[in-house]
Amino acid sequence: MSKPKVFEKPIGLKDYLPSVVKKLRAVEHKVLNCMEVWGYEQIITPTMEFYDTVGVASSTSDEKLFKLLNNRGTTLVLRSDMTAPIARVVSSLLKDQQFPLRLSYHANVFRTIEEEAGREAEFFQTGVELVGDSSPEADAEVVALAIASLKAAGVKKFKIAIGHVGFLNGLLEDALKNRLEDQALLKEKLLSRDYVGYRDQLNGLQLTDSVRKELSDLLRLRGGEEICEHALTVSSNETAREAIQHLCAIWAVLKAYGVCEHVLIDLTMIGDFSYYTGMTFEGYAADLGFPVVSGGRYDNLLSQFGRPAPATGFALKTTRILELLGNEQEEQTDKTLIIYDEQGRLEALQQAQALRSEGMYVITSKVSELPAGFALGGDKLYQGVTYTTVKTYMGEGEKA
Amino acid sequence: MSKPKVFEKPIGLKDYLPSVVKKLRAVEHKVLNCMEVWGYEQIITPTMEFYDTVGVASSTSDEKLFKLLNNRGTTLVLRSDMTAPIARVVSSLLKDQQFPLRLSYHANVFRTIEEEAGREAEFFQTGVELVGDSSPEADAEVVALAIASLKAAGVKKFKIAIGHVGFLNGLLEDALKNRLEDQALLKEKLLSRDYVGYRDQLNGLQLTDSVRKELSDLLRLRGGEEICEHALTVSSNETAREAIQHLCAIWAVLKAYGVCEHVLIDLTMIGDFSYYTGMTFEGYAADLGFPVVSGGRYDNLLSQFGRPAPATGFALKTTRILELLGNEQEEQTDKTLIIYDEQGRLEALQQAQALRSEGMYVITSKVSELPAGFALGGDKLYQGVTYTTVKTYMGEGEKA
Repeated sequence: MSKPKVFEKPIGLKDYLPSVVKKLRAVEHKVLNCMEVWGYEQIITPTMEFYDTVGVASSTSDEKLFKLLNNRGTTLVLRSDMTAPIARVVSSLLKDQQFPLRLSYHANVFRTIEEEAGREAEFFQTGVELVGDSSPEADAEVVALAIASLKAAGVKKFKIAIGHVGFLNGLLEDALKNRLEDQALLKEKLLSRDYVGYRDQLNGLQLTDSVRKELSDLLRLRGGEEICEHALTVSSNETAREAIQHLCAIWAVLKAYGVCEHVLIDLTMIGDFSYYTGMTFEGYAADLGFPVVSGGRYDNLLSQFGRPAPATGFALKTTRILELLGNEQEEQTDKTLIIYDEQGRLEALQQAQALRSEGMYVITSKVSELPAGFALGGDKLYQGVTYTTVKTYMGEGEKA
Repeated sequence: MSKPKVFEKPIGLKDYLPSVVKKLRAVEHKVLNCMEVWGYEQIITPTMEFYDTVGVASSTSDEKLFKLLNNRGTTLVLRSDMTAPIARVVSSLLKDQQFPLRLSYHANVFRTIEEEAGREAEFFQTGVELVGDSSPEADAEVVALAIASLKAAGVKKFKIAIGHVGFLNGLLEDALKNRLEDQALLKEKLLSRDYVGYRDQLNGLQLTDSVRKELSDLLRLRGGEEICEHALTVSSNETAREAIQHLCAIWAVLKAYGVCEHVLIDLTMIGDFSYYTGMTFEGYAADLGFPVVSGGRYDNLLSQFGRPAPATGFALKTTRILELLGNEQEEQTDKTLIIYDEQGRLEALQQAQALRSEGMYVITSKVSELPAGFALGGDKLYQGVTYTTVKTYMGEGEKA
């Protein structure tokens, strides 16, 4: 194993240079503002948590957690998402606050990666958790807020697909009673959106014709509001029917929000987090092969921290959203350069202070004599930066 | 070793609840804006770095670094400051950008702690690095910017003490030639500001009367501009004299900035970072026993990353500054509550959307019937939160 070179950083980690930081900060600011006017208040939790508490409760598989030991030899993890840490806070510091609680965050999270190109071991998420409300209104609120947040971030074209883990669970329970392994294989295909593989898998199973047709027809359960009605005819399983009714209720609320143009129902969708118990959703932006937001209901997580409560929420994949945004948002800052010599110093620095106090961007530079370009008054390029305005304070006073 | 309880987090780490996050975010925003108008551009670097590169170059002692292994078995550290990571970026991604470079950051940094009350293992710093300029003007710029940043953060009473590592080094070199251990013991006392201990130490040393007096008089070298002149009479050592001349030049520039009321010269001060090579400074706020800012010149660090250059900078102790600030800055947000039932839903949610698009804070809540207090129109407390405005959309339309 060779030593890393001095200029290197570990794989999967990156530096954000000023132009990218400007974009990231702008998105962070606009999205958090959006969440705030919806009543969500920001919290910050530590980068490290106990493995035995938050690490175990998180939905990240064990081998993807960054682990380290503290001074006492206890295993810590770098947080892999914010949902489990927020559940911890809701159950401890906020335990006397009445439900529902609306909380937001912007945070870096960590997952170990295989050494594949383009995967990141540290990335930013901006999200919310709505804790203590099990209603379809609560689910619809977080979906509508996810839509508002994507718009606030500047994402122009996107679709949110909503599903419900109960529908598929109910359907498979009935169709493949006690055949848990077969159920798991089919779910895996759906999770990776491998519909061809799903059909192949199905064809290899011992099934009655009607069950085979039911499970095959499942793939068509993607579309608008009509899907819910259609789905009710597919299954008589109680869990599946309740799931559909909950989705119908969510759809009705989303209609009142006026956001259904961005939403489609996708009953083939399984949330990628093990802790989801109800509605789940994912948002896709045009031209991007991965979700820009994902969320869902997790009614069992809070009980692991001793304060049982229903909860729903989402996380924007903020780092990925940056890749979607062009540079059009970047406003050019007016930059003033003040060049001075010993004699002009007092005036120059006081002028700089005055301009900065008005919010203007000012750089000062002391020289012994004026660089050639400036003497002619034409050049505004200095030390590799182009300035909007150049002022000089040389000898007896301001010259340009 | 007992397992951590589910509600616990590791020692030295903390959660920031919404009211504190608001304060922290406000400080972060104002300070970064201040740094921006001085021409400093923000960068973000990864939380983890290679131990062999940034870990070794950082000024944090080895046992205070959080270490972990990546998938390949290479040792990583959680960054303990931002100076070394920025030196890495300046020497790699920014290697073609012309000096001087002005960079700013707001970041959490990590140090393992003994289990003492009140110490933190993760805390926020907001700072700048000015790379590629060795002039007294550059040092004065970062001191003046530190003062502007503290003001922007809302710190009202503070003093910046500036010193120079060269003065003490020169003086001790002459006074205690080749007695490195004695030099180190005296420096240690000065670093911990234990002046009684310093005198005791001095009394125990074999010294000529004149040297003893010189080293004892050192303690008086704290004050205003006159200290520089006084110091020039104390030592004839070339290093010490050059240090004083550099400090005099810095003072003259600070005068032009009009900030000397906040500055004092303290030649007994040693920067607490091993990498400082010139001017160092620390800022103290009234009533607080620890510095709220520290900084200095480090002309040898960049060469460790392959792009030798002089550099100077500082870091505000942002987490500590929060403790200084009262709650006076907190503006009360106007909060609107919209209560609705099934029939009033469409109107209620559309009203909520309209108000939010104007930047108003709105929470919606569906009920089957109006809570008793609201029917009377008096109560504005709902689910533990007090609202400025309550609107109800029940049955046939808005009622209040």
